[in-house]
Amino acid sequence: MAFTAKQIADFLKGEIVGNPDITVSNFSKIEEGKTGTISFLANPKYTPYIYTTEADIVLVNSDFVPEKPVKATLIKVPNAYAALASLLEMVNSANPRKTGHEEMSFISPAATLGEEVYVGAFAYISENVQVGDSSTIHPHVYIGENVKIGKNCILYPGAKIYRDCVIGDRCIIHAGAVIGADGFGYSKESESYHKIPQMGNVLIEEDVEIGANTTIDRAVMGSTIIRRGVKLDNLIQIAHNCEIGEHTAMAAQVGIAGSTKIGENCVFGGQVGIGGHITIGKNSQIGAQSGIISNTKEGSEVMGSPAMPVKTFFKSSIIVPKLPDMYKQLSALEKEIAELKKRLEQGS
Amino acid sequence: MAFTAKQIADFLKGEIVGNPDITVSNFSKIEEGKTGTISFLANPKYTPYIYTTEADIVLVNSDFVPEKPVKATLIKVPNAYAALASLLEMVNSANPRKTGHEEMSFISPAATLGEEVYVGAFAYISENVQVGDSSTIHPHVYIGENVKIGKNCILYPGAKIYRDCVIGDRCIIHAGAVIGADGFGYSKESESYHKIPQMGNVLIEEDVEIGANTTIDRAVMGSTIIRRGVKLDNLIQIAHNCEIGEHTAMAAQVGIAGSTKIGENCVFGGQVGIGGHITIGKNSQIGAQSGIISNTKEGSEVMGSPAMPVKTFFKSSIIVPKLPDMYKQLSALEKEIAELKKRLEQGS
Amino acid sequence: MAFTAKQIADFLKGEIVGNPDITVSNFSKIEEGKTGTISFLANPKYTPYIYTTEADIVLVNSDFVPEKPVKATLIKVPNAYAALASLLEMVNSANPRKTGHEEMSFISPAATLGEEVYVGAFAYISENVQVGDSSTIHPHVYIGENVKIGKNCILYPGAKIYRDCVIGDRCIIHAGAVIGADGFGYSKESESYHKIPQMGNVLIEEDVEIGANTTIDRAVMGSTIIRRGVKLDNLIQIAHNCEIGEHTAMAAQVGIAGSTKIGENCVFGGQVGIGGHITIGKNSQIGAQSGIISNTKEGSEVMGSPAMPVKTFFKSSIIVPKLPDMYKQLSALEKEIAELKKRLEQGS
Repeated sequence: MAFTAKQIADFLKGEIVGNPDITVSNFSKIEEGKTGTISFLANPKYTPYIYTTEADIVLVNSDFVPEKPVKATLIKVPNAYAALASLLEMVNSANPRKTGHEEMSFISPAATLGEEVYVGAFAYISENVQVGDSSTIHPHVYIGENVKIGKNCILYPGAKIYRDCVIGDRCIIHAGAVIGADGFGYSKESESYHKIPQMGNVLIEEDVEIGANTTIDRAVMGSTIIRRGVKLDNLIQIAHNCEIGEHTAMAAQVGIAGSTKIGENCVFGGQVGIGGHITIGKNSQIGAQSGIISNTKEGSEVMGSPAMPVKTFFKSSIIVPKLPDMYKQLSALEKEIAELKKRLEQGS
Repeated sequence: MAFTAKQIADFLKGEIVGNPDITVSNFSKIEEGKTGTISFLANPKYTPYIYTTEADIVLVNSDFVPEKPVKATLIKVPNAYAALASLLEMVNSANPRKTGHEEMSFISPAATLGEEVYVGAFAYISENVQVGDSSTIHPHVYIGENVKIGKNCILYPGAKIYRDCVIGDRCIIHAGAVIGADGFGYSKESESYHKIPQMGNVLIEEDVEIGANTTIDRAVMGSTIIRRGVKLDNLIQIAHNCEIGEHTAMAAQVGIAGSTKIGENCVFGGQVGIGGHITIGKNSQIGAQSGIISNTKEGSEVMGSPAMPVKTFFKSSIIVPKLPDMYKQLSALEKEIAELKKRLEQGS
Repeated sequence: MAFTAKQIADFLKGEIVGNPDITVSNFSKIEEGKTGTISFLANPKYTPYIYTTEADIVLVNSDFVPEKPVKATLIKVPNAYAALASLLEMVNSANPRKTGHEEMSFISPAATLGEEVYVGAFAYISENVQVGDSSTIHPHVYIGENVKIGKNCILYPGAKIYRDCVIGDRCIIHAGAVIGADGFGYSKESESYHKIPQMGNVLIEEDVEIGANTTIDRAVMGSTIIRRGVKLDNLIQIAHNCEIGEHTAMAAQVGIAGSTKIGENCVFGGQVGIGGHITIGKNSQIGAQSGIISNTKEGSEVMGSPAMPVKTFFKSSIIVPKLPDMYKQLSALEKEIAELKKRLEQGS
């Protein structure tokens, strides 16, 4: 399916700089651009490629002014990345969605499935499960008793939802994610551990996306809560009784210990660790690999383990490799001062 | 099912302070306490909530003395958290356990299953597998050839056990955990790697709990060993030929490299990394995100990467953000001393 | 199946020191050596065990000269670890490989399977999938539409391959690994996130091994590329549009952010994190738990977060615990200098 620059610009309400009749039939990254494709420029780091790319059309931000001649036809839009997203979505939505229940799936007679639901082979749907209209349950998905799944959800192959959990509309759960496994709770009795039954559940609101092999534990009582619009990358651990605020996004391999509350609109880099029973204020930005062991205020920008303001972190990081020299310098100064004192005393 | 404070206090052998006839039918966290529920106070951080909670009953430690009036009825017990565990267990054990083999499961005729074993649909049980009495094999579990599973075990959906592994009685393996995948072993040959077949197995003793999506690799030869009572949280990596000592507990996302031996009764925070061929003494406490590259003694309490005694870690961490200032200060002092020397020499 | 030292030495082209007729029937680690087994000595750390091991035969490097009497028969070879690998492989290859398609598997009529392919029960093979000759598709494997799998591959139970991905010959994908889940891409729109459809795929070349529960995301457009000979351990995250160079090896729990390019022949310790849009030069060695936020040159050996040259890292790490003392020392010196100045001024 090919589109002209004009058709694309019309769809995006953008402005063409170049040939309105040139056609493209696929997407490419600007540094790997090929004839017949459309690309985009959003990250300034990639600006040099716009002068060399073989892509025939490039989406750029309205304020982009080339410093050299550009071979590609440009389409100027307010936000090149968002425009790309719209285009990708338009093409993606042309893919037909599967419906119907494949043989060799297990659907409890006591489960309630909405209309236009797809259930793949080897999916397991337990008693009293509810699945909303137009949701997609891929092969090998497990849904435990009493689970409620909203409308227009996608559960990718091998996602596992333990009993009693609740998932809102338009959620996407990727392959291998585990929702509602037991929280890590024991009471210590002399030398051994005694398991605390985890009687709560996980409550996921609408428009949440959960990455592959991410694990979200059920609450010991009450709910572990993932608020609407939250985006979790792969291999993340959310412990029991946590609450993740609306529209917070976390990169891969983050770990959040038990009963911690994360505010809304936070952004976490990868491999961050947050201690238990902590509160992270809304609109916080936590740098990759940070370790947080105390509450942080609204709008914090921190990094390091333990975390400090991000500017302080980078300034201190520059000094760390100089520590051996500082240590020697300090000893040398100490000797010099001792000698100066001696001379001063002898001189007096 | 509702219980009176008196019934609960009798069951726990606790002492009532308040109304013995008040009834509850569910659990709640003290900060989210609702009428009709029982809560508990174990972590002093949550003490303020006891004066405001809506929970009708609260379990407290015997030595708890309120500083203000408390609306809830208190039940005093030696250990409020352990008492809660007993209560939760009592309620939990009222849930019936599934038994029988669901159709669409695969059970090799050469496998031996004990009495009252549940096998869910789409579970795969290979040749020569043994499963002990009253064990629960959920849907999508894979059990490879020659595996032995003890009595009263629970394998949650999608747990994968590779061939030849051994799992003791009363173990719990959560969804997506992989037991016995190949260790990461290669010999380097000029530019490429040559795989070393991993011929050993994983040996898990009794009363072990393994978290969701945790991976424990089989030994190259002999066994990777998880001793009795060990508790592993989610997304942990245990490499080939490790041994984890009895009743050691590890929080999520810990990684242990090959052939390392961890002593008994250790406690690991989340995201800790331990190098290969290392010995960690028993009763050690390893702080979250620590990195350990040499042996540690019995009873060590360490943190940091590389790890140091935990008190040193926190003292040093306070200084790290001051490094840029220290660096400037040091340069300034150096200049001042040079000047002093000059003046002293001129003066003499 | 028992072998004599002579048979083994002939197979390995090694030299016997001891009894050529002694027989062994199993392998053991040198520190756990038992009668009737063959062991090896490659890591010098384990040299003391050669004088006490109960193993009847030990493979050693040609240059090994015992300092005390050794009870075991030695077989000297140029590389003891590689020789062990050959032996393990010989024994391992005696295990018969399963073939045929088990009932209760799902194979689309529009899929093409080569000769001698094994498909386990509950495996799901979608439309237009191609699987090469002699590949092994274990139970619970999911293969999405249009996926191509090469010859002699092994996909362990529960591996999930999303649509359109390509896997070369002789690849091994361990249990629970997820290949081709959506990259973590959104455009921010006021307070919420808008998902960017991930239209690319994952391309894995030949001779790659992917660990258990590792996740490799599909590209937003184009391919996330894993070059031939790459070895990835368990629980690793490779984000969208990354490229991992030939014969690079990564230990467990490494995370690589989007669009990063890793050169060939690199070695990564466990839990390393690499930022997005970064280039790591070939032949680099990245120490465990390092955090990398800028490009590194060919042949770099770095460690720390942020990373620095590995020698600098260890030198600085020795100083870190001394920081509180340095801080006090610096304040003391400052006071002393102030006093000296005062005395000098009074004296003049």
